[in-house]
Amino acid sequence: MVFSSKLIEDAVASFCRLPGIGKKTALRMVLHLLKEDKEQVAHFSETIARMRREISFCPDCNNISDDGLCGICSNPLRQRSVICVVENIRDVISIESTRQFNGLYHVLGNLLSPLDGIGPEQLLLGNLVSRVGSGNVSELIMALNPTIEGDTTVYYISKQLQQFPVKITGIARGISFGGELEYTDELTLGRAITKRLPVENYINVS
Amino acid sequence: MVFSSKLIEDAVASFCRLPGIGKKTALRMVLHLLKEDKEQVAHFSETIARMRREISFCPDCNNISDDGLCGICSNPLRQRSVICVVENIRDVISIESTRQFNGLYHVLGNLLSPLDGIGPEQLLLGNLVSRVGSGNVSELIMALNPTIEGDTTVYYISKQLQQFPVKITGIARGISFGGELEYTDELTLGRAITKRLPVENYINVS
Repeated sequence: MVFSSKLIEDAVASFCRLPGIGKKTALRMVLHLLKEDKEQVAHFSETIARMRREISFCPDCNNISDDGLCGICSNPLRQRSVICVVENIRDVISIESTRQFNGLYHVLGNLLSPLDGIGPEQLLLGNLVSRVGSGNVSELIMALNPTIEGDTTVYYISKQLQQFPVKITGIARGISFGGELEYTDELTLGRAITKRLPVENYINVS
Repeated sequence: MVFSSKLIEDAVASFCRLPGIGKKTALRMVLHLLKEDKEQVAHFSETIARMRREISFCPDCNNISDDGLCGICSNPLRQRSVICVVENIRDVISIESTRQFNGLYHVLGNLLSPLDGIGPEQLLLGNLVSRVGSGNVSELIMALNPTIEGDTTVYYISKQLQQFPVKITGIARGISFGGELEYTDELTLGRAITKRLPVENYINVS
């Protein structure tokens, strides 16, 4: 693509570095911004820069935080005895969006994956052990991806914490709501049959 | 979507205002930027802000320009007697990318569309008339979309310029290269047959 302007070329190249954005989409974005007011674009740019500059990580749970403790850890209405262990920030946002969980989180940052060179030292586990060790935590919910890496991590963490009297649970696995048996993969469907539940679980969702 | 950080929420909202970007894609971009160095993100943000702040429009052809005359109008190697009339900057970039045109451009900004309230006063025509009137222009190539609006605009401009001895041409219309007759729409195929060309045109493409 030939641009007659260096400014446009640089802006397109900047947008291209974002995930899933090619040259044509980047150009579309740049031309869109060109039609907007200068103040609006300055605000757009400042919002992005400020986000990266000022964001920090919660010293308790490793979640993103605007300042010191994150909004979840500092909320006095959250149940402090239940901790949900997740891989990353995206998972925190997903679970928060369900509005079904009122406890705290712990973000691991990674899942164990020896093949990719990710060992226990890459997991942000330190303060999870101390949080559980403090004795205020009664339940740890493992909300990790249902993959080999996720299951390995669950196993590793439960071994690390076996000395503490904490109940370790995992999020339910089975067929999706609204899904069709016909299109469910064999592994999921097979496990859903062997790990079947009393029908009461279907109704009592809260 | 529930974000536990105001900074992230604002950044996602900013990205969402771009065309074709929904909340999930915006979040993906924000989390990508979060993983990059602070300096890289500051540079990204500054490039965008600078582009909008410093860009100007060429006083001759209305194309985008970094400073005064645009890179095309100020290039002494371009043929100054041929002007290609296009609707917008995107069209300039498309035609430049073909590397088949070495003349100058004129960007109209709009096409005539009475139904959308776009009349002749919305076209950036003023300096096109004066450029043609200067007598240095021998040909005007109309490269507008092959739509009712495009054709109306071509007709209007040729009427406006009929007093000047300038040759007015339009870009060729017909079936696309690599296209299949079977899937070509009836209007295009019908016109391609009635407006058929000597076979020499097929070979002599430069």
